Amino acid sequence: MATKPFAIIAGVGPGTGSSIARKFAQVYSVVLLARNPGNFTTVVDEINASGGQATGISTDLSDAQSVNSAFDKITQEYEGSALAAAVFNSGGGFVRKPFLELTGEEFSSGFESQAKGAFNFAQKTLPLLLTAKNTPSPPTLIFTGATASLKGSANFSSFASGKFALRALAQSLAREFGPKGVHVSHVIIDGVIDIPRTKAWTFEHEDAKLSPDAIADSYWHLHTQPRTTWGFEWDLRPYVEKW
Amino acid sequence: MATKPFAIIAGVGPGTGSSIARKFAQVYSVVLLARNPGNFTTVVDEINASGGQATGISTDLSDAQSVNSAFDKITQEYEGSALAAAVFNSGGGFVRKPFLELTGEEFSSGFESQAKGAFNFAQKTLPLLLTAKNTPSPPTLIFTGATASLKGSANFSSFASGKFALRALAQSLAREFGPKGVHVSHVIIDGVIDIPRTKAWTFEHEDAKLSPDAIADSYWHLHTQPRTTWGFEWDLRPYVEKW
Amino acid sequence: MATKPFAIIAGVGPGTGSSIARKFAQVYSVVLLARNPGNFTTVVDEINASGGQATGISTDLSDAQSVNSAFDKITQEYEGSALAAAVFNSGGGFVRKPFLELTGEEFSSGFESQAKGAFNFAQKTLPLLLTAKNTPSPPTLIFTGATASLKGSANFSSFASGKFALRALAQSLAREFGPKGVHVSHVIIDGVIDIPRTKAWTFEHEDAKLSPDAIADSYWHLHTQPRTTWGFEWDLRPYVEKW
Amino acid sequence: MATKPFAIIAGVGPGTGSSIARKFAQVYSVVLLARNPGNFTTVVDEINASGGQATGISTDLSDAQSVNSAFDKITQEYEGSALAAAVFNSGGGFVRKPFLELTGEEFSSGFESQAKGAFNFAQKTLPLLLTAKNTPSPPTLIFTGATASLKGSANFSSFASGKFALRALAQSLAREFGPKGVHVSHVIIDGVIDIPRTKAWTFEHEDAKLSPDAIADSYWHLHTQPRTTWGFEWDLRPYVEKW
Repeated sequence: MATKPFAIIAGVGPGTGSSIARKFAQVYSVVLLARNPGNFTTVVDEINASGGQATGISTDLSDAQSVNSAFDKITQEYEGSALAAAVFNSGGGFVRKPFLELTGEEFSSGFESQAKGAFNFAQKTLPLLLTAKNTPSPPTLIFTGATASLKGSANFSSFASGKFALRALAQSLAREFGPKGVHVSHVIIDGVIDIPRTKAWTFEHEDAKLSPDAIADSYWHLHTQPRTTWGFEWDLRPYVEKW
Repeated sequence: MATKPFAIIAGVGPGTGSSIARKFAQVYSVVLLARNPGNFTTVVDEINASGGQATGISTDLSDAQSVNSAFDKITQEYEGSALAAAVFNSGGGFVRKPFLELTGEEFSSGFESQAKGAFNFAQKTLPLLLTAKNTPSPPTLIFTGATASLKGSANFSSFASGKFALRALAQSLAREFGPKGVHVSHVIIDGVIDIPRTKAWTFEHEDAKLSPDAIADSYWHLHTQPRTTWGFEWDLRPYVEKW
Repeated sequence: MATKPFAIIAGVGPGTGSSIARKFAQVYSVVLLARNPGNFTTVVDEINASGGQATGISTDLSDAQSVNSAFDKITQEYEGSALAAAVFNSGGGFVRKPFLELTGEEFSSGFESQAKGAFNFAQKTLPLLLTAKNTPSPPTLIFTGATASLKGSANFSSFASGKFALRALAQSLAREFGPKGVHVSHVIIDGVIDIPRTKAWTFEHEDAKLSPDAIADSYWHLHTQPRTTWGFEWDLRPYVEKW
Repeated sequence: MATKPFAIIAGVGPGTGSSIARKFAQVYSVVLLARNPGNFTTVVDEINASGGQATGISTDLSDAQSVNSAFDKITQEYEGSALAAAVFNSGGGFVRKPFLELTGEEFSSGFESQAKGAFNFAQKTLPLLLTAKNTPSPPTLIFTGATASLKGSANFSSFASGKFALRALAQSLAREFGPKGVHVSHVIIDGVIDIPRTKAWTFEHEDAKLSPDAIADSYWHLHTQPRTTWGFEWDLRPYVEKW
């Protein structure tokens, strides 16, 4: 029966999600959701070993039943605790293909992973955020966007459709739930993030990739803004990024 | 065995789709797609009676199989003809509801009707547009957007997600197929259209609704632009509209 | 004492302005404004020789007194005629320089040529457009934008500032004067126009430049839209343009 | 002969500028620029009294000579110190008037106060920021925008022109100087700020105004971002703001 406020990070891999979890775990209990437990066990163990409280739940965010089942566990385990922050950080649904080679399923996968996953997550977290009491900062729901949130490039129709749809959802929720006290924010990550998967990608400048820890710091700052002064949209990119 | 170039209008109701069909039928044979045949029979008969050529095919645009079956008929009937223009004008997927009352199916319906429908339509029309020869104007693919293409308002997360996703698709296709000679365009209809369904809606000014015939004229103008000078995005609204 | 409606084209060079003048001269008397008379004499003579009516007035659009003096002549000559359309098409104020090499005067030149010139022009044309009676299409005021209207690139701070400011002006005027019956529009020309000055610029594709005549056709189409269905912003570019 | 890094805040009134000065004075020496010394003396005294270092210089930011003279004093006084941050926060140039009642001078005042003032400030601060060594965070140049940075409303053509132009400048500088190591950022303040001048403005909700201290906290956060992960644009607004 926890009483410390908690945060839920959905879409945790060895990069940004883990950094966000570590950052929020400095103040809150954290719940990490990812389809593949291999993506969260290391950081869950690390947080618990260093005095924090973390739990991981294997969840397919684009599947409502899987999300329901995860939140059944969460509401049981965190009964009496306030949900202070929820972060949707799914990297799924990325397909890059000439349009005429896309299957219908591939096209929809951008929407399913990004927008439908975010819908499922928001449906479950918003009731908790709306009723959260005495959180140190206003209850916060952050969505992670990408370059493709603003621009539909050739061969990116699936991912861009998903990211545009996610941005529409974030705007709708900010306008509906902002006045009810929930801080909804959308952060556009415009560049390559420095994670294990991109280690081998080299650029002219050695620090040309976004730092997951710095992204986490900025998400935390968003969370700490008072409700008089909320940021909705923010674009983060490396200093050498072309845009 | 038709030889006149033809146009396909998808999403025909008694308003904009019919006006577009009438306009394009002045020069081309036209094929009208709508789920409910009641939506196209009147205008099909009218065009045929006045010396034009029109066919209607009952089609569920969000269902790939239904679209495939429609295009089987089309390619058979129009073998030897060039597809000069294709217009996606679906009005489906409109839901207006507080977010927490939305079902997953309702949320997805915006995407299914708008973006998935447009995907199905583009998959079938682009190969024909790419190979169209000797059309009087460059082969053209036009998508109809809405206010919700640019703004996710409270209670509109489903429709806005679908319209944002459709816009992402249109941008991706314009960037991929423009250099291959297909004019892809996205028109944002920002206001109420003067159609039978909205007849009863009155405003302070009597001409406060968009004219479907004027929309059709502007779609036709887009189609006639030479490839040196293509419009991609355009916002149309009544003179008294707040924006 | 003319009675035919007239149009004023401001910023006439041997390219777009001339094409717009020729197009509008098919229906209206036209007045051409440019600082250098060499920029309009050829097209004025050509229009008059072919049965149209054209006058050129040497005007520095960024200088209020010069604009006042031009409009004194215009209101005298066109007393009793209705101003049907006014087009602001200035290409001035283009500077491309590293920021720290810019003088204050160079920085301001983008604003002076674009936004201040447009201000001077709008101050004089709007009263005429507001009172125009019986014009074949709604009185129209069109501003020409550029790629720099939407994006401030490195080394373009002067021109982008001017074009951004012009777009702000166009939006403000559309929202103030649209409900009063004047169609205000902003067209973003995104690419190189095929004019004498750019003849020597070659690209991979031979038709990679915008056609001034096609731009003029689209401006005319904007002018003919009924007030129920007005386009505000439109982006025109060649089919091979990267964007 | 100071050696502590310093920050310059331009456009200091009793609201946001003072809060930013107080915040940055926790780590840096601060220089405050405002036309009217009455706007900075209180906060300068307050900072100095509480152990910080602050100087105020009466400066007309839209006047290059006045800015030059201020920076002569600054470079003399801060020789050997690194400029760590510069904030342009001018509130000048606000005019709200029907377009046809605006004088040319009133129209230009938006540009002069906002964009030309920012130009003058950037010309003087960028050389110092480019050469700043060993600052705790990357050298930073922040510009304050407003609702009118993104939307030209009726009766706001002057202020919107100035704010649009300022945004163009900020984008140009971010793209030119980002790769050279200077963090350029543009913050859009979308709402009424809670300052002495707006004390009497009441809204349905008592905390419906932006907090200057919270704005300052977010500016400070921007400054502390590492160069791998820089935010460029951010919109801040109260939770009940309509947008």
